[in-house]
Amino acid sequence: MSTDAAPQSEAQLVETQSATLFKDKPLTLASGEQMGPIAVAYETYGRLSENKDNAIFVCHALTGDAHAAGRHDGTDRKPGWWDGFIGPGKGLDTDRYFVICANVLGGCQGTTGPGSVDPTTGKRYCLKFPFITVQDIVDVHAELARHLGVTKLLAVIGGSLGGMQVLSWSVRYPEMVRSAIVLASAASLAAQGIAFNAVGRRAIFTDPGFAGGEYYDSEGPRVGLSLARMIAHITYLSEDSIELKFGRRLQDSDEFAFNMRKETEFQIESYLHHQGKRFIQRFDANSYLYLTRAMDYFHLGGTEMPLVEALSAAQAKFLVASYTTDWLFPSAQSRALVSALLDARKQVSFIELESPYGHDAFLIELEQLTAIVTPFLGHVATSGDKP
Amino acid sequence: MSTDAAPQSEAQLVETQSATLFKDKPLTLASGEQMGPIAVAYETYGRLSENKDNAIFVCHALTGDAHAAGRHDGTDRKPGWWDGFIGPGKGLDTDRYFVICANVLGGCQGTTGPGSVDPTTGKRYCLKFPFITVQDIVDVHAELARHLGVTKLLAVIGGSLGGMQVLSWSVRYPEMVRSAIVLASAASLAAQGIAFNAVGRRAIFTDPGFAGGEYYDSEGPRVGLSLARMIAHITYLSEDSIELKFGRRLQDSDEFAFNMRKETEFQIESYLHHQGKRFIQRFDANSYLYLTRAMDYFHLGGTEMPLVEALSAAQAKFLVASYTTDWLFPSAQSRALVSALLDARKQVSFIELESPYGHDAFLIELEQLTAIVTPFLGHVATSGDKP
Repeated sequence: MSTDAAPQSEAQLVETQSATLFKDKPLTLASGEQMGPIAVAYETYGRLSENKDNAIFVCHALTGDAHAAGRHDGTDRKPGWWDGFIGPGKGLDTDRYFVICANVLGGCQGTTGPGSVDPTTGKRYCLKFPFITVQDIVDVHAELARHLGVTKLLAVIGGSLGGMQVLSWSVRYPEMVRSAIVLASAASLAAQGIAFNAVGRRAIFTDPGFAGGEYYDSEGPRVGLSLARMIAHITYLSEDSIELKFGRRLQDSDEFAFNMRKETEFQIESYLHHQGKRFIQRFDANSYLYLTRAMDYFHLGGTEMPLVEALSAAQAKFLVASYTTDWLFPSAQSRALVSALLDARKQVSFIELESPYGHDAFLIELEQLTAIVTPFLGHVATSGDKP
Repeated sequence: MSTDAAPQSEAQLVETQSATLFKDKPLTLASGEQMGPIAVAYETYGRLSENKDNAIFVCHALTGDAHAAGRHDGTDRKPGWWDGFIGPGKGLDTDRYFVICANVLGGCQGTTGPGSVDPTTGKRYCLKFPFITVQDIVDVHAELARHLGVTKLLAVIGGSLGGMQVLSWSVRYPEMVRSAIVLASAASLAAQGIAFNAVGRRAIFTDPGFAGGEYYDSEGPRVGLSLARMIAHITYLSEDSIELKFGRRLQDSDEFAFNMRKETEFQIESYLHHQGKRFIQRFDANSYLYLTRAMDYFHLGGTEMPLVEALSAAQAKFLVASYTTDWLFPSAQSRALVSALLDARKQVSFIELESPYGHDAFLIELEQLTAIVTPFLGHVATSGDKP
């Protein structure tokens, strides 16, 4: 997460808002199921210009939320998850741009998800929640944009699962998206990524506390969810960063304990256990199941349409960035995407950013990101295809 | 595992034998604890020469066993785990060499481990089993070699945790080890490896079936152990091999199921679930805890002695091999070992072998391995420092 946030005294105060969409006409999901109404939690930063040409949609990653920037009140210990990148004079400059961020469908931070109450039964959905895909997430967010009076976005931007959403936006709503910024992502999840997700889900499914997903009146699958997070967390770090940050250093002593019951002897162990514990306080296991599955399923064009053809619908200018030490979404996958974009005769800039931080770099290396996004947005804003 | 085993009709029949060591004088472990007697399961292939100069000790990896080659009877579906490499005319040519392989201390396939009965209490050790290290494993195997009348080994060879044992052999028993062959291994486990082991152990510890390690009268932590195996298994495969072998292919259908309860929709998921299930039939969770911990602890020279100094005791000729796509023990770690061996003025050959199979390559790429090990052993056998 961002480490260069503004000091608390200067922080913007923001509020998470909620819109209820698909009240009259339900959304038809990729699965064919219909769904509605759908509540969407969102935040906005900056002001929509009079001619409504300065809106940017931020797509969050797997476990993110609508609270991308600012603080909810002066006593918040931490600002939003991308606060170092969104704000006055920052990468997404709120003096110039109107920035929207919304929690994803299937999530657990305000937008309708498996923990929400199904209006048709009066009970929580749990695993009766419809199967959702990246496309469905984007359909909900496009409706939110329209609800906010935005029919054209200067940019859609996101990393990881957020980058997948950006790609889906670009081909499903070509007329709405003037530029698409895809960070640390790919046109589909590779088998290794599916494998790690599969083990995380297995840990949740097999936790006795999971109770078939109907655990909201009890503690729930705390162990399984924390294991899933620990596994995933390793994939977000690079081999180099984990070595530099922790190496083989011990947590409490200079000497080995020779004690089989001591689970957190190395610093890296203590760190992972801590990450697992923190995560279960803020995330819902059912949402984790649904959203990792959406990530697995994402495959632009699918098996029947070549990627180039799938991308041909897009009208956006693309900016694709990968990170040298990201092994969950390696640069090769971004290069393949860029190659397909070029074959589809799209305008595309690509940069492989140097960073030791692995997949997490898009959340950490914000100066670097600002340095490439600022001129790109300036170029898009002043280019001819205004709304 | 080996795929080029001899057809069943030609298979060597072998038998796992057992020796009881440290009956009179207990072994002092690295922890300071004393232990004895210790039963050791082992197999031998080929014949010890009259002047006892043709013995090779094979060190198995984390979940291996003494059954490295041949079949126990004609109906065995599979031969030993390194059968494609050990046998008449093979890499470790049993027409020439006397090959010994023994289950490790702390294991669960015949050698004393946490599932064994503690002679002082008449009950299984469980987590009262002493904490063990790679050094302790090697001390037991060195005693076994002496028990078999072998005081000098032509070679000690092993991959992964087996390679760590080889390094420990070379510095603890320099006068016994004429050559040391270290495959897909390192002088210590990197933080990322500790991280994956930590999550696997956490899965076992938190399984209600674990019962503090005293589960032998029940089903035990089947879920936790299978999760641990699934996680570890991903690290044994390369990104390329997992992509080639499974990619995004579905298991039962050409079309997505859109069903949150379907856990094994992708082939890679089905494969991992299968690996997890198979593993719990053959491995003991307590052994998994102890042996992964031994792997974590392994650090030649430790924090107080530079690696070069630690290696200076060795008298062996070294052969070090790494694999291009092994990300659990990357080539860089083998290179660092080789560099330290050179600084310590040891004879060392190093080769980085091309393979798509990741860490598992040392179990699969047996032709390639034979091509480098055969001439190396021939050279050692005919060199001056005979016993």
